[in-house]
Amino acid sequence: MPMPHANTLNFSAGPGALPAAVLAQVRDAIAALPETGVSVLGMSHRSDWFLAILDEAERHVRHLLGLSDRYAVSFLQGGSSLLFATVPMNYATPAFAAPEYVVSGYWSARASAEAGRVGPHRIAWDGQRAGFRELPVLEQLDVDPRAAYLHYVSNETIEGLQFALPARPASVPLIADMSSDFLSKPIDAWHFGMIYAHAQKNLGAAGVTVAVIDRELLTRIPGGLPHILDFRTQIAHGSNYNTPPVFAIYVLTLITRWLRDDIGGLEQVQRINEGKAARLYAVLDEMSDAVTIHAKRPWRSQMNVAFTFGDARLDRAFLDTAEARGMSGLEGHRSLRGLRASLYNAVTPQAVEILCETLIEFALQRA
Amino acid sequence: MPMPHANTLNFSAGPGALPAAVLAQVRDAIAALPETGVSVLGMSHRSDWFLAILDEAERHVRHLLGLSDRYAVSFLQGGSSLLFATVPMNYATPAFAAPEYVVSGYWSARASAEAGRVGPHRIAWDGQRAGFRELPVLEQLDVDPRAAYLHYVSNETIEGLQFALPARPASVPLIADMSSDFLSKPIDAWHFGMIYAHAQKNLGAAGVTVAVIDRELLTRIPGGLPHILDFRTQIAHGSNYNTPPVFAIYVLTLITRWLRDDIGGLEQVQRINEGKAARLYAVLDEMSDAVTIHAKRPWRSQMNVAFTFGDARLDRAFLDTAEARGMSGLEGHRSLRGLRASLYNAVTPQAVEILCETLIEFALQRA
Repeated sequence: MPMPHANTLNFSAGPGALPAAVLAQVRDAIAALPETGVSVLGMSHRSDWFLAILDEAERHVRHLLGLSDRYAVSFLQGGSSLLFATVPMNYATPAFAAPEYVVSGYWSARASAEAGRVGPHRIAWDGQRAGFRELPVLEQLDVDPRAAYLHYVSNETIEGLQFALPARPASVPLIADMSSDFLSKPIDAWHFGMIYAHAQKNLGAAGVTVAVIDRELLTRIPGGLPHILDFRTQIAHGSNYNTPPVFAIYVLTLITRWLRDDIGGLEQVQRINEGKAARLYAVLDEMSDAVTIHAKRPWRSQMNVAFTFGDARLDRAFLDTAEARGMSGLEGHRSLRGLRASLYNAVTPQAVEILCETLIEFALQRA
Repeated sequence: MPMPHANTLNFSAGPGALPAAVLAQVRDAIAALPETGVSVLGMSHRSDWFLAILDEAERHVRHLLGLSDRYAVSFLQGGSSLLFATVPMNYATPAFAAPEYVVSGYWSARASAEAGRVGPHRIAWDGQRAGFRELPVLEQLDVDPRAAYLHYVSNETIEGLQFALPARPASVPLIADMSSDFLSKPIDAWHFGMIYAHAQKNLGAAGVTVAVIDRELLTRIPGGLPHILDFRTQIAHGSNYNTPPVFAIYVLTLITRWLRDDIGGLEQVQRINEGKAARLYAVLDEMSDAVTIHAKRPWRSQMNVAFTFGDARLDRAFLDTAEARGMSGLEGHRSLRGLRASLYNAVTPQAVEILCETLIEFALQRA
C-alpha cells in the first residue's frame, strides 16, 4: 500500500489541509503562471491577470452561494479578528438599538468582547457557564427588534459546536462569522445580512477574508470612518483599493474552481462532509466508555470534532500513535486541550478512515 | 545565449520580482516543507515550525537593521493603507499637538488624508502644487515640538522620489512608511520612532506588513482601542494574536535569510542597488533629448525610476518592445502614466543591463 502523503492526513483546525490538485497548481504557479510566464508572487495587483482572478473569485463565490445582486462580495485582510471590530464600527449606529451577540464559544466570545470595546452591545445568549457544550436556537432568542444586528459564529472551531442553519431571515440583520464552515454546505444566503469567513479553513491560504454583504446594510454605514475600515471601500474598488493579498486570493480562486468543477458544488461537498463526520462520530460513540466528545449531540460540528480520552497522557499517547502514521494537526486548542480532528472540505474520506482505524486500534490495545 | 526567465525581467512596482533562489524554495515548500513533510499552506500558525519561522523573521529584521531592545518588531496585516489609519489612532492623543504630515507624493497624500479622517493633523510640507518632483529636507521643516509625531513616506513609489536618510533623530518621533525602500540599504533605525513597510516590494509576497516601533511610543497608546488596531496587541502575542498570514511571513523569512546569507547584508545590497540605479539613470540622461525623468535630480529614487518618452504612443511602443524581450511591469502608475522601472533588491544588475540595452536600441531606431 502506498504511504499516504502527509498533506492528505492533515487534520489541523487551520491553516489546514488543501486539495492535492490545488497544491499541484499552486506549486507550478510559484515558478511561473501558465498565463503569464511570471511567478504568481511577482504579479502586480493591477495586472490584467489579477483583475481576471479577482473577477473569477467573486463569480465562484456568487455561483456557489447562489447570490443575487442584493449582495456585494469583497475580499478583505485582517481575518475575523479585524471584522470583530469593523462590524460594529460600520453598523452599530445611534439610529438602531445596541447590536446583540450570541456567545456560544471561544470565538464568539472574542467577537462580543471586541464589540464591547467599540460601543454598547447586548449579549443575546451566553453558553459559557454551561461550558460551551450546547447552542441555542437562533429563532427563539429574545432580540430587540430595533437592534442594529444579531451576530453569531456559525461553527465554533474550538469546541466543535455547529449551529443549524436559520430557517428564515431574522427580525434584525443576521451577521454570521462562518470562518470554519463557509462553503462546506449549501446555505440560504438571503437569510443573512452579512457573512464573513477567513480563508485558512475551507478557502485556502491564511491572509484573506471573504465578506458577503446585503447592500441595504451598506446604506447604514456612517461617514468619516477611515476608508480602509469602511466596508464600502473595497466593494467600490473591486477589492483592489490597496494591494490585496494576491497569493491568498489566487489560492481561493483555485479552491472555489475545484469545489465547482472537481467536487461538483456545495450539495456534493455537503454529502461528503456528512459522511466523514458520521463515520468519525460513530467510531467515537462506539468508544464512549473511553472517549468524551465535547459537544452535546444535537450541536456536534461536522467540521471540527473535539474529544478527549479524559487524560492528558492518553491524549498524548494517541497523538504519538497518529503522528507515527503521518497524521498531523490533531492537538486540541490550547484553551480546551484534548484532541480535535478538523474535517474541512479538503480532508478526504480516506484520510478520515485512516484516523478511525487508528482510533479503533488504539482503543483495542488499551481495552 | 539562454533566454533570461521572465521572473528575472520583472520591473513591477509591486508585487514584483523575487530572488530566483527564494522562488525555488517556496515552490518546494508548497508541496512539502523539508522540516515537516506538510505543505507550507497546511501548517498551523500554532505549530512549532511556524513559531520558529516567526522567531527567525524577527531575528533577521533585527540583525539587518541593527535594532536594540528599545524597538519592538511585529508583523501585521492590512498593508500601509491600514497603518495610515492606525498610526493616528494609536499616537495622536490629546496629550500632544496634532501630528504633522509631509505630503510628497501619491502615497504620503493618502496617509495624510486618512489621518485627517481620524482627527486633527497638520501638513508640514506639501509638494503637490510643484507636481511632486522634489522633496524637502526633513530636518529643516518647521514642526511643532509638541506634535505627536512627524510622518513621511521615505520613497514615493509612483513619482520615483526618495528622501535622503535623516541625519539625526527629529525633535518629535519620526514615523516612516518605508514600504518601497525597506531593507534596500542600511539605516540608523534609532533616528525613527516607527518604521513600517509592507511586503510586496523588497520583502516578498503581498499580505504582511513589518512594523518596527520604539517602545516609548507604545506607552502613549490610549486604552479602549479594538485589540486588533492597538499596536501593543501583536507585540504582546509575538505577531500570533490571531491567525497571521503564514505564507507571506514564511516568504519574508526566506527573503531576509537570502539578504543576509546570499547577498551579505544591507551594505552589500546598497552597493548593488546604487550600481543598478546609476546605470539606468546614466542611460536615461544620455537620452535626455527624448526622455523626461519625473523626479528632479537630487531626489531621484534608487528603487523606482519614473520616466516618459513624452508621448503615450512612444511609451506604448517602448513597452511593446520590452515585453517582446520578456520584460514586464514597466507601465507607469495610472495616476502618473508614462513608464516606471522598479529596481528592488531582487532585480539583478543583469536585468537592468537588458533594460538599458533595450532603451538604447529603441532610442537609436527613432533618432
